[in-house]
Amino acid sequence: MDMPITPLKTLSLFNNCSDDFFAAVKAESVHLKTQKGKILFLHGDAANRFYLIRTGWVKLFRETLDGTQAVVDIISKDHIFGDTSIFENSQYPYSAEIVEGGEILSYPVAPLKSEIERNPAFAYDMLSAMARYRKQQDREIEHRSIQNAAQRIGCFLLRLTKQDETGNIIIHLPYDKMLVASRLGMQPETFSRALKKLKDETGIEIKGSTIHVGALDQLSSYSCAACSSEFPCKDLACSST
Amino acid sequence: MDMPITPLKTLSLFNNCSDDFFAAVKAESVHLKTQKGKILFLHGDAANRFYLIRTGWVKLFRETLDGTQAVVDIISKDHIFGDTSIFENSQYPYSAEIVEGGEILSYPVAPLKSEIERNPAFAYDMLSAMARYRKQQDREIEHRSIQNAAQRIGCFLLRLTKQDETGNIIIHLPYDKMLVASRLGMQPETFSRALKKLKDETGIEIKGSTIHVGALDQLSSYSCAACSSEFPCKDLACSST
Repeated sequence: MDMPITPLKTLSLFNNCSDDFFAAVKAESVHLKTQKGKILFLHGDAANRFYLIRTGWVKLFRETLDGTQAVVDIISKDHIFGDTSIFENSQYPYSAEIVEGGEILSYPVAPLKSEIERNPAFAYDMLSAMARYRKQQDREIEHRSIQNAAQRIGCFLLRLTKQDETGNIIIHLPYDKMLVASRLGMQPETFSRALKKLKDETGIEIKGSTIHVGALDQLSSYSCAACSSEFPCKDLACSST
Repeated sequence: MDMPITPLKTLSLFNNCSDDFFAAVKAESVHLKTQKGKILFLHGDAANRFYLIRTGWVKLFRETLDGTQAVVDIISKDHIFGDTSIFENSQYPYSAEIVEGGEILSYPVAPLKSEIERNPAFAYDMLSAMARYRKQQDREIEHRSIQNAAQRIGCFLLRLTKQDETGNIIIHLPYDKMLVASRLGMQPETFSRALKKLKDETGIEIKGSTIHVGALDQLSSYSCAACSSEFPCKDLACSST
């Protein structure tokens, strides 16, 4: 079943795309209802489709020979993935697994490649999006060098808030704690110890997947001490493309 | 003093650039002789130049409020830097410091931006280069999650070799050990302990900045066990742009 209009149109990344592009992707779009645990593709698979998440959560990951997983990202609504395979010899650079079921649209990658080649404004938008992603990765690498595990959890929580809120704040974890641990590249036991430390250092209260924060300063003064950017994070407005 | 031809022309990234582009950058190119310790620019500075290294080494880094450094990369000959500032509100996304003196050329960024907007082939080449960099960063994040410190040093050493060599191999560290430690995001004491562990696990011999390896298998079977890619590394051929 197809959607009445192409939801790609609503994403700022595709603002400058031509009608030909939208017609080409729409003609071959596929609407998937996905369930937890489903693998959409594996790292190294031949890539001829890219994906847009409408609802649910998707884990992008790679595995070592001995089966250890490295989580690249856990993404949700309005994120696309698999698109950069066009620059990777048409192979997916990671595996994709549904971690919370929902709706996903898939599109052919060929029109994406032609549109970049034909439409400089779109190529520029793609470059800007990749530069933003590069910045996120830079921050991730930086944090894995200089933040301790508790500060990294604090940073993850701060990035779930609006950052300009005052007074008491309630944060809901977007997915279960063990997934948060793997997203942050931590073993479950490291994560548990670090979460306890964060609680002791900042006075936050944790009940299941709900975190009560007395004031954001408590978290930011502790976590952002080991970050080269200032709080509030300037890049948050751009994080959804 | 300017160079007789534009050395940018020799880099594969600029293969598809127009003569107008080369004329525009050459007209405003500046040739710098740099000395160790010189800061070329700081994170957040207004960016109107990008740089090409001819000789020497440059450290790209960011600093936290309390002065802790996070090294983004340490790069040398034929690498450009500062170019992605055009996607970062014209601000440098890191600081740049000379760690080994040499020659550097600087060029205006404005023609780079116009060329991307005007020339789809170049925009595509830029996207491919950014996708390769993204892959490197993905690997870096992965390794910081699942490799131990000794494996990460082993990986760093393996990437300095041709990877298809057999028999005894001698590896020369490209810069001093403390810089290697900071490049890998390790404290000096962690680095020393991990280097000793790597020696014990793989039988390599270390004399100053020279490493003797009996056979690459010794290093690769230990280090690459915790990597989602296979040895030899497929991306090495592309790592110089």
